Amino acid sequence: MNIPKSKNPRVVIIGGGFGGISLVKSLKNKPIQIVLIDKHNYHTFQPLLYQVSTSGLEPDSIAYPLRKIFKNYRDFHFRMASVEAILAETKEINTSIGIISYDYLVIASGSKTNFFGNLDIEQNSMPMKTVPQALNIRSLVLENFEKAVVCEDANQRKSLMSFVIAGAGPTGVELAGALAEFKNGIIKKDYPNLNAQEMTIHLIEGESRVLPPMSLFASKKAERFLKKMGVAIHLNTFVKNYDGKTVTTNSNLCFETETFIWSAGVTGAAVQGLAVESFTERGNKYRVDSFNKVIGYEAIYAIGDIAQMKTETYPKGHPMLAQPAIQQGKNLGKNLLLILKNKQPNQFSYIDKGSMATIGRNKAVADYKKLHFGGFFAWFLWMFVHLWFLVGFRNRIVTFFNWTYNYINFDQAARLIIRPYIKKK
Amino acid sequence: MNIPKSKNPRVVIIGGGFGGISLVKSLKNKPIQIVLIDKHNYHTFQPLLYQVSTSGLEPDSIAYPLRKIFKNYRDFHFRMASVEAILAETKEINTSIGIISYDYLVIASGSKTNFFGNLDIEQNSMPMKTVPQALNIRSLVLENFEKAVVCEDANQRKSLMSFVIAGAGPTGVELAGALAEFKNGIIKKDYPNLNAQEMTIHLIEGESRVLPPMSLFASKKAERFLKKMGVAIHLNTFVKNYDGKTVTTNSNLCFETETFIWSAGVTGAAVQGLAVESFTERGNKYRVDSFNKVIGYEAIYAIGDIAQMKTETYPKGHPMLAQPAIQQGKNLGKNLLLILKNKQPNQFSYIDKGSMATIGRNKAVADYKKLHFGGFFAWFLWMFVHLWFLVGFRNRIVTFFNWTYNYINFDQAARLIIRPYIKKK
Repeated sequence: MNIPKSKNPRVVIIGGGFGGISLVKSLKNKPIQIVLIDKHNYHTFQPLLYQVSTSGLEPDSIAYPLRKIFKNYRDFHFRMASVEAILAETKEINTSIGIISYDYLVIASGSKTNFFGNLDIEQNSMPMKTVPQALNIRSLVLENFEKAVVCEDANQRKSLMSFVIAGAGPTGVELAGALAEFKNGIIKKDYPNLNAQEMTIHLIEGESRVLPPMSLFASKKAERFLKKMGVAIHLNTFVKNYDGKTVTTNSNLCFETETFIWSAGVTGAAVQGLAVESFTERGNKYRVDSFNKVIGYEAIYAIGDIAQMKTETYPKGHPMLAQPAIQQGKNLGKNLLLILKNKQPNQFSYIDKGSMATIGRNKAVADYKKLHFGGFFAWFLWMFVHLWFLVGFRNRIVTFFNWTYNYINFDQAARLIIRPYIKKK
Repeated sequence: MNIPKSKNPRVVIIGGGFGGISLVKSLKNKPIQIVLIDKHNYHTFQPLLYQVSTSGLEPDSIAYPLRKIFKNYRDFHFRMASVEAILAETKEINTSIGIISYDYLVIASGSKTNFFGNLDIEQNSMPMKTVPQALNIRSLVLENFEKAVVCEDANQRKSLMSFVIAGAGPTGVELAGALAEFKNGIIKKDYPNLNAQEMTIHLIEGESRVLPPMSLFASKKAERFLKKMGVAIHLNTFVKNYDGKTVTTNSNLCFETETFIWSAGVTGAAVQGLAVESFTERGNKYRVDSFNKVIGYEAIYAIGDIAQMKTETYPKGHPMLAQPAIQQGKNLGKNLLLILKNKQPNQFSYIDKGSMATIGRNKAVADYKKLHFGGFFAWFLWMFVHLWFLVGFRNRIVTFFNWTYNYINFDQAARLIIRPYIKKK
């Protein structure tokens, strides 16, 4: 592979997510050759994907070209490719564009949707982990409304206007809230021939509360917000199957729907090639030590969603969120520089910066240590934090403008079916 | 088809382009039932499509949901559908969502790319008449650069970095200019491993000058701008074929390229069903009288690109531009109201508002009657006019911001390969 020769040791990073870009930033213009590999040519700001699904934002507001982030970095090389295997013995990886050798390898490949082996659900449901998937949901939602307008069969119309979401984590809750705003705002304005009351939104959760990873306060508050907005919540309920027409559950509840969104699970997107001992029991994550070094290897590290670092506070590993990935990337960057100077690296220590979820206009919940917020203040905080973490000045301004516009106009403006909904084959 | 019953006569409009939306606007809240039909759920501002192709703007800046434009219109009904045939005898049209009857029918179906029957070119070249096509060009361009980065074969790399455009009308010229800015700005910044000098842009034109419909002044000026920016111009040259690898011409010129963009011709997108006498010789446009009424029919009209109205000044019909469509839509709207009051309608009379094309930063040309501008002033005028005609406050602000940002930063920021390039089957 024609990566320019360099006198610097080469660090190859798999994945340009939160972990990967945090690591690259911490190695800026240091005596290291950085090779960043990603399937896409952009970084995705996943926390706002649901707004792309629901016509609130365009992809370019939440996706940022990786080359552009690092355009002034010395000895930095981006390669758009997928990684097929790690060849640890020869310190190489095999990719869609050929073999790439490394001195240090960092796996930051993140997570993917977990269908728990249910092929029907995998085939018929809509996941929402990538920009194309989010746009596919947008197209399906808008196409279903267009079909509903001309549908004379009442049952079929109800099915077209019924939206069922599995999993009431932040993604499911935020999506349900945004769809409820669609119902209460857009349908009445844009679809005079539809009866907005026929639109239903169902949120199904296996645990006994929504937002299970958050505080009890946040769960209660979010549940109240959602109910007020017209979302039907089904707790302690597990989805059994979805054949493309009907969602069945472990109770006698079932739902006729053309749109079933699956946000009930994620799993590590591991790469082939390392020894069994390096993986967690389920084989989907890498076991790492307190320096993020993969167990059993000297020059291979893993950070973020794909890494499991067991600690006293987090016996099952850190939560699969942006913050652990960002902090691990930063710590690993510093450590690599220390190692190159033959100094002792620092153990990773996670600083919990809290968590939040937004349900709708003026409605959000936030936990920060022992503090819990709900309502307008949490919503304002949510907006501020998300704008702050968006990559790039341009994205922040455009997103801020779109949010302000949508807020004033009770609108989600990007209601475009650019490419028709694509069904999985 | 379940369009609500109304006491008002029904006007069915095929196509939500410039002509269609101008017509609907002129019928706002009048005693007329309006049914607007379009394949897409949005209006496309075609003059700025080339900026979507070249990463300057996102689709939502130049596309606008049709339902949103007309959300406060009484007795207005949008239907997303394709029209299969006109059944003039029964005053109906057959569509993908069923039969729709009309009292008056207006065909505003616009134009489509003309490949002049060359199947190889149709198969292998990239047209740019719709948003998905523009996004497909963007993906191909960006993917080719990523391939070039890892390509060790010099000829193959040259082919990946060679861009050939057929047709030096406004679309071809604007696209060539934007690609030249890509070469001079983005490549150097984003692709340190590429040699920007290897990127070539070829513009092929059958006539003896670029921008043939404009003034000689504009042609000369545009040609100078393009050459200065590094575009190779080939006049009096006709493309013979493109097999996916090599563009051949009527001279001994040929070009190895992975990206061949076809902007060398458009033709009317006629609908099936009317009598042969209603069509122009080539069968691609409707012959209309000076009221835009289709020859041979009483209640069927055609406006914009699809209509051919021969006048003294325009013996071959009006130019296929936004302005004739907008003006005909407006005039026809007034006429339909007059006809319903049993009054005499007004003949259409075209007011030429001039024409313009932009080549790049501070570089545009504009003709207005006997006045000809070139350079910064024309560029400023071009921006102002295009912002003015964009639909919607939000689109104007976001576009204005993106242009300002791109101008200050010498940048085209939306360099995202959201969906990979899709080859025609």
